[in-house]
Amino acid sequence: MAAPLNCSASELIPLLGSTPNASAAATYLCQRFGAVASKLTDITYAVDNTYLLFSAYLVFAMQLGFAMLCAGSVRAKNTMNIMLTNVLDAAAGGLSYYLFGYAFAFGSPSNGFIGRHFFGLKSFPSQSGDYSFFLYQWAFAIAAAGITSGSIAERTQFVAYLIYSSFLTGFVYPIVSHWFWSGDGWAGAAKADGNLLFGSGVIDFAGSGVVHMVGGVAGLWAALIEGPRIGRFDRSGRSVALRGHSASLVVLGTFLLWFGWYGFNPGSFLTISKSYGTRGSYYGQWSAVGRTAVTTTLAGSTAALTTLFGKRLLAGHWNVIDVCNGLLGGFAAITSGCSVVEPWAAIVCGFVAAWVLMGLNKLAAELKYDDPLEAAQLHGGCGAWGLLFTGLFAAKDFVNEVYQGKPDRPYGLFMGGGGKLLAAQIIQILVIIGWVSATMGPLFFGLHKLNLLRISTQDEMAGMDLTRHGGFAYVYHDEDDGSNLPASFKMNRIEPTNTNTPTPNHQHSTMLESTV
Amino acid sequence: MAAPLNCSASELIPLLGSTPNASAAATYLCQRFGAVASKLTDITYAVDNTYLLFSAYLVFAMQLGFAMLCAGSVRAKNTMNIMLTNVLDAAAGGLSYYLFGYAFAFGSPSNGFIGRHFFGLKSFPSQSGDYSFFLYQWAFAIAAAGITSGSIAERTQFVAYLIYSSFLTGFVYPIVSHWFWSGDGWAGAAKADGNLLFGSGVIDFAGSGVVHMVGGVAGLWAALIEGPRIGRFDRSGRSVALRGHSASLVVLGTFLLWFGWYGFNPGSFLTISKSYGTRGSYYGQWSAVGRTAVTTTLAGSTAALTTLFGKRLLAGHWNVIDVCNGLLGGFAAITSGCSVVEPWAAIVCGFVAAWVLMGLNKLAAELKYDDPLEAAQLHGGCGAWGLLFTGLFAAKDFVNEVYQGKPDRPYGLFMGGGGKLLAAQIIQILVIIGWVSATMGPLFFGLHKLNLLRISTQDEMAGMDLTRHGGFAYVYHDEDDGSNLPASFKMNRIEPTNTNTPTPNHQHSTMLESTV
Amino acid sequence: MAAPLNCSASELIPLLGSTPNASAAATYLCQRFGAVASKLTDITYAVDNTYLLFSAYLVFAMQLGFAMLCAGSVRAKNTMNIMLTNVLDAAAGGLSYYLFGYAFAFGSPSNGFIGRHFFGLKSFPSQSGDYSFFLYQWAFAIAAAGITSGSIAERTQFVAYLIYSSFLTGFVYPIVSHWFWSGDGWAGAAKADGNLLFGSGVIDFAGSGVVHMVGGVAGLWAALIEGPRIGRFDRSGRSVALRGHSASLVVLGTFLLWFGWYGFNPGSFLTISKSYGTRGSYYGQWSAVGRTAVTTTLAGSTAALTTLFGKRLLAGHWNVIDVCNGLLGGFAAITSGCSVVEPWAAIVCGFVAAWVLMGLNKLAAELKYDDPLEAAQLHGGCGAWGLLFTGLFAAKDFVNEVYQGKPDRPYGLFMGGGGKLLAAQIIQILVIIGWVSATMGPLFFGLHKLNLLRISTQDEMAGMDLTRHGGFAYVYHDEDDGSNLPASFKMNRIEPTNTNTPTPNHQHSTMLESTV
Repeated sequence: MAAPLNCSASELIPLLGSTPNASAAATYLCQRFGAVASKLTDITYAVDNTYLLFSAYLVFAMQLGFAMLCAGSVRAKNTMNIMLTNVLDAAAGGLSYYLFGYAFAFGSPSNGFIGRHFFGLKSFPSQSGDYSFFLYQWAFAIAAAGITSGSIAERTQFVAYLIYSSFLTGFVYPIVSHWFWSGDGWAGAAKADGNLLFGSGVIDFAGSGVVHMVGGVAGLWAALIEGPRIGRFDRSGRSVALRGHSASLVVLGTFLLWFGWYGFNPGSFLTISKSYGTRGSYYGQWSAVGRTAVTTTLAGSTAALTTLFGKRLLAGHWNVIDVCNGLLGGFAAITSGCSVVEPWAAIVCGFVAAWVLMGLNKLAAELKYDDPLEAAQLHGGCGAWGLLFTGLFAAKDFVNEVYQGKPDRPYGLFMGGGGKLLAAQIIQILVIIGWVSATMGPLFFGLHKLNLLRISTQDEMAGMDLTRHGGFAYVYHDEDDGSNLPASFKMNRIEPTNTNTPTPNHQHSTMLESTV
Repeated sequence: MAAPLNCSASELIPLLGSTPNASAAATYLCQRFGAVASKLTDITYAVDNTYLLFSAYLVFAMQLGFAMLCAGSVRAKNTMNIMLTNVLDAAAGGLSYYLFGYAFAFGSPSNGFIGRHFFGLKSFPSQSGDYSFFLYQWAFAIAAAGITSGSIAERTQFVAYLIYSSFLTGFVYPIVSHWFWSGDGWAGAAKADGNLLFGSGVIDFAGSGVVHMVGGVAGLWAALIEGPRIGRFDRSGRSVALRGHSASLVVLGTFLLWFGWYGFNPGSFLTISKSYGTRGSYYGQWSAVGRTAVTTTLAGSTAALTTLFGKRLLAGHWNVIDVCNGLLGGFAAITSGCSVVEPWAAIVCGFVAAWVLMGLNKLAAELKYDDPLEAAQLHGGCGAWGLLFTGLFAAKDFVNEVYQGKPDRPYGLFMGGGGKLLAAQIIQILVIIGWVSATMGPLFFGLHKLNLLRISTQDEMAGMDLTRHGGFAYVYHDEDDGSNLPASFKMNRIEPTNTNTPTPNHQHSTMLESTV
Repeated sequence: MAAPLNCSASELIPLLGSTPNASAAATYLCQRFGAVASKLTDITYAVDNTYLLFSAYLVFAMQLGFAMLCAGSVRAKNTMNIMLTNVLDAAAGGLSYYLFGYAFAFGSPSNGFIGRHFFGLKSFPSQSGDYSFFLYQWAFAIAAAGITSGSIAERTQFVAYLIYSSFLTGFVYPIVSHWFWSGDGWAGAAKADGNLLFGSGVIDFAGSGVVHMVGGVAGLWAALIEGPRIGRFDRSGRSVALRGHSASLVVLGTFLLWFGWYGFNPGSFLTISKSYGTRGSYYGQWSAVGRTAVTTTLAGSTAALTTLFGKRLLAGHWNVIDVCNGLLGGFAAITSGCSVVEPWAAIVCGFVAAWVLMGLNKLAAELKYDDPLEAAQLHGGCGAWGLLFTGLFAAKDFVNEVYQGKPDRPYGLFMGGGGKLLAAQIIQILVIIGWVSATMGPLFFGLHKLNLLRISTQDEMAGMDLTRHGGFAYVYHDEDDGSNLPASFKMNRIEPTNTNTPTPNHQHSTMLESTV
C-alpha cells in the first residue's frame, strides 16, 4: 500500500541491466506510469469536485428549507417579508461573498485575523481551492444570516435587515470561519503549521459554532434589543403562542433542511476519494463520509423522538411543530462532531439537545424573550451543546483519521482523550459569543437608537406585507365573492405608477389609511 | 479486456531475463502496478459511495414527498396528524433500523429466516457493507411505514400509529427484505450460494413487492378493520369524495416522489463503476443505471397519460389528482423490473398499471373500502402487477448482466425465457401477502379489540389536529379580524403549563368543550 | 502530460533488448497497462454518467419548480389546471421524446435539418450517447413547454394545451436543439466537421435561446392571439394586477428552479472528468463546471438585487415576487454564456437582465399584453439578451477550453475577440424567432379560428378548476362550518358515474348551473 506510484527512469535504468536500450525501455515504461498517474489525478479531481458540487447544491437547498420553515412559522401577514429576507440572504450573499467574504475567510496567507486574497475571485482557482469550494462556502455563509432573520421576524424594518445581513454575511461570519476553518486560522484543528490551540485545536467540523452559534447569538441580541412582538405576552405576563400560519410549510421546510444537512455535514469532508490505509481497502474517507451521514441522522432522529415524548408529558399533545424544532436542534448539535463520534454517541448528542432546547424555550418564556423561530435557543443553545459534546465524545481513531498530519491528537474527555480538546471547544464558545456580541450587539443597538430597527405599532398590527411588501401573500378567493375578506384585500389593485412618487417609509400605510 | 491488472514479480522475473537485476526490476515495476491497482480500488470505492449516498439522499427526499402528498390528500383538520406520522416514520425508523432493523435484514450470515449481526452497527463497516448501504436501506425501510399510514389516515389513534409503525419498520419489513434482497435470503435472484428458487430466484430489483406491497397489504388490513371514515359513503351507499384540502401539496408531493424515485430505482444497483465487458467499453453498469432511470420515467409517464384519458372518459374531467395517483401507480409497478426490461416494455407496464389502479379503485368503492391515499390499491395492487410484469417481460441480456455469477438464467415468459421466473414472482406475491397478513393483521385486530385503533366519533368530526395535536395546521387570518373563523380558532391560545397536568387522552377535547 | 497511456508490445520488445524472453516480458507489461487503461476508461464512464444523471435529476426538479411557480402565480380558481399542464409536460414529454423527439434532435447522422435515428431508442446506447444523455435532454425538452404554458395561463382550453404542447416538445423544440447542439447541426459551436457559421458557430451553452427563447416566443404568440385575461386592464386601459394566489408557492418554485439550474447550466458540460492540461493538474473541466455554477449564481443574484432596488424606486415597495422574477431573468440570461465568461461578467449580465425584464414588463403593460408568468418577457427577452451578452463577453481561454478541436476561435467583442461570435449569436436570435413564429404562430392561430384556444367567458369567471378539472384546489374548511364558502363548494360531492355520460365540453358547467 505504501509503494509509490511514480516511476523514475533514473531508478529503473540500472535495474533493466546492461542492454543497450535500457534507457529507452525505462523511459518508455515510466512515461506510461506517468500517464497513468496523471489520469488518476484527473479522475480524483473529477470525483472530488462532483462530490463537493452536489454537496453544495444540497446545502443551498437548505436556504429553501429556511424560507419555508420561516414562512410557515410566522403569521400570514408577514410571510412576504420573511421570504424576501430568505431570498436576499442567498442573492446578496452571493455578491458579497464573491467580492470580499471569501477573501476574508479563506484568502491565505492571512495576517492571522483575516484573510486578504482572492477578492472578487482574482487569481482563482489555485491549488488551494477551486470554484466548488467557493460555492460550498457561500452556501454556508448565507445560512448564518438566515438563522438570525428568524429571531427577529415579524417586527423588524426591512432596511435594518439589509444592513445587519450584509454586515453579518460579509464580515462577522467570514472572520469566524477564518479562525476555525482556514489553514491559517489561529484556532482550528486543521491549522497548517501544526501549532495547535492546547495542542488540539477546535473541532467544529461542519459548524455548530461557526455557523449555528454565530447566527443564534446575533439573533439573541437583536431579539433582546427589539423586545417581544405585540401580544406575545399578555398583561399578566403569561406566554401567548402566536402560532405560525402554516404547519405544512414548517414540515416542508424541516424536511428540506434535513435533506440539505446531508450536504452540510458529510459534505464538509470536501473530498471523498481519500484512502485511510488502515483497516483495509474497503475503509476510507468514503466510509467516514457515510458514517457522518449516519451520525447526523441518528442525532436528529433521537432529538425528534425525545421532543415528541417530552412535550407530550409537558404540554399534553403530540405536536409536529415541536418535533420539527427538536429534530433541527439535534442536527445543529451534531454538526460539530458528526465526523469524529461513534453512531451511539450521536444518540446521546440528540437526546441532550432536545432537553437543551426544551429547557431554553422554557427559560425564554419566563424571561419574556420572544424568538419566533426559537433560533437563538435552537442554533445558539444546541450549537453550544454540540461543541461541548465533541469535546466529550470525540473518538480517538476518527479524530486521527479526519485530522491527519499530526499524530496522537487529544480527543474526547469521556473517551479517555483528556481535557485538552474540551478546553479548546470551550474557548470557541466564549470567543464566538464575545466576537458576535462585540460586533452585532452595537450594530443592533445603533439601529435601535436611530429608530431603524423596529417597525411601528401600526405596521406590526397590520402586518408588514400589506404596508411594505406589496400585499398579502395569499388570495384564496376572488374579489367577486370576497365578502368575507378583510377590507384591505380590496384596496389598491391598480398598479403603482411613477406619478405616485413614493415617500419611502409612509407611502403604503398612507394608502392603507385612505382606502380603509 | 480480460488481462489481469495485478503484476506478479515471480512471474515477471524470468521474463526479464538473466540480467543480474531482473529481480529488482520486476519488483520495481510490480510495486508500481500494485500502487496503481490500489489507487484504482480507492477511486472505485469513492465513486460508488458517492453514487450510493446521493441516491440515498434522493430516496430520503421521498419521505418529504410522502408527507406533502399525504397532507394534501387529507382534510385540513387532520394535516398536523398525518405530517407528524411522516416525520416520525423517518425519525423513529432511524433509531430502530440502527438498533436492530438493519441487523434483521442484512446481518449475514443469517439463519435463513432473519439476519443476526450488526445490531447497533457493531463491527461495522466491513467488506460486505458500508455506511452508505445502511443509509440507503434505512431510507427504504421508512417508506413502507409511510405507505401504510396513508391507508388509515384521518381516523387512527396516534398510539396505534406508534405501535404498528415500530413493528412494521423494525421487524416485518426487514425480514421481507432479508428474504428477497440479502445474499442469505432464501428467495432472491442474487442469492449467494446460487441455489435459486426454481433455478431463478425472485427479481424484485427495487421493491415493488418488498417495499410497496408490504406497505400496501398492511394498509389494507388496517383500513378494513377500521372501516371507512364518517361520511365516506352516504346512507344509500354511494361513494362520497372527501376531498383532500390542497391539490398544490398533492402535486408537490408527487413531483418529489418522482424526483426521489431516481434514487430508489437506479440507485438500487448500489454501484455504478462496473464494467459489463460485452458490447464495448462505452456500455457498462452506468448504462444500465441510466436505462433504469428511463424505464422508470416511461412507466410513470404512460400511467399518467393513460389515467388522464381514462378518467376523462369515466368521470368527465381532466383531474390532476387522478393523474398524480396514476403516475405513482406506474412507478410502483416498474420498481420491480426497472433494471431488466426494455424501455418499450416499461410503456406496457405503465399502461396496465393505470388500469389496475382505476379498476381497484372502482372495486374499493363498490366494497365500501376507504383508503384516503388509495395506498392499498396503488402500492399493493400496482406493486403486485409489477412483479408479474417482470416475470413476463424481463429481457435475457439484462437479467444476465444485472444478476451475474450464474449463467443462462430464466427470464421473462413473453421474451422466450420460460415460466420459471414468473413462478418465482408469483411465489413472492403469495409470500408477502401471507407474511404481512399473518403479522400485521393480528396486530391491527388486537389494537381494534383494545379500543386503541380508531379515534372517537367526536374526535373524527372535530379533526385530530384540534383534539390531539395542538391546533389547526393553518391560521390565515388573525384573531383580530377572525369573525369568519370557526369558534375553535379563538380558544386556548395560552400555552399549557405544567400546572395543568394533562390527562393523556382527554385533555384537549375537554379544553375544547370548556372554551367553546 | 502528453505521454501516451497505451503500451505497445511491438514498440517495447526491441527496447527490452535481446533477451530471449523480451517478447513475453513486453506482452506481460503491456497487458497490465492495457488492463489499467481499460479500468481507467470504465471509471471515467462511471464518473461522467454519475455526474450527468444527477444533473438530469436536478433539471427534472425544475419541472416541480415550474409547477409551484405557476400555481402560486395564478388565481386559486385555476390552480388545478396549471398544475396539470406541468405534470403533463413531463409525462407526455417522456413518451414523445422517447418515441421521436430525441431522434429528431440527436439522431445523427442527420440531413442537416432534422435527426433521423434512435426512434424509440432503437440501437441505443452507442458510443455517441448513453441513457443518461437521453434523460438529460428529455429534462430540457419538457422545460420549453412549461415556459409557454405560463404565458397563456388562466384562459386556455385544455385541448389546446394538449395539441400545442405535443407539437412544441415533439417537433419544434427538438429541431432547434438539433441545429445548435447536435454535432450535425448547422449552427452550433461544437459542429463536428469544423465548418462553422462565421468561423465561430453559435455559443448557446445551456440554452438561453434553444430552451428559453423557444418557450418564450411560443408563449408570446399564444398570449397575443388569445388576448388578456378578463379584468387585466380596466375600462380606462389601466393595468390591474391579477395577483397570484400564493406567494409561498412562488418562492418555493423560484428556489427549486435555482436549485435545478445547477443541473441545467453546469450539467451542460455532460462530462466532468476531462483534463484541460493547461494551468496545472488542479485545473480541468471540473473547474470549468464549478465556475459555471458560480457565474450562474452571480448573474441571478445580481438580477435579484437590481430588481429589488429598481422596483423599490419604481413601485414603492420591496416585493418578493418581483425579486423572484428578476432572479429568474438573470438565470435565463446567463444560461447561454455561463461556461465561457468570467464571474465579473456574469454580474454585468444579471444587472442588464433585470432592466430588460423591467422594461419589457412596462412595455407589455402599455401594449396591453397579458402574460401571467411574464414568461415571454422573462424567458424570451432575457434569453435574447443572454445570447448577445455571450457575443460580447465570452473570454478567449474559456471559449477554447470548452469548445476544443478548432484553435483560435472568435470570442466576445468586448474582450477583443472580434464580431464574428456576436454575428452568429444574432443569427441565432433571428432564426429562433423566425422558426418558432412560423410553426407555433399558425398553430395557435388555427386553434383560435377553430374556437379551440380560449375558454368561454363564463368558464373564465368561474375558474377552470370548477368547470373542467374536478373542483377547487383547496378545501380549508369542512362543509359543516362552510357558511363562508362560495356556493359552488357545496355542490357535486357525489362522485360521477358512468351513467352520467359526459358531454365533453359542457358537462360540468351544466352541473354547475343545475346545482347553484
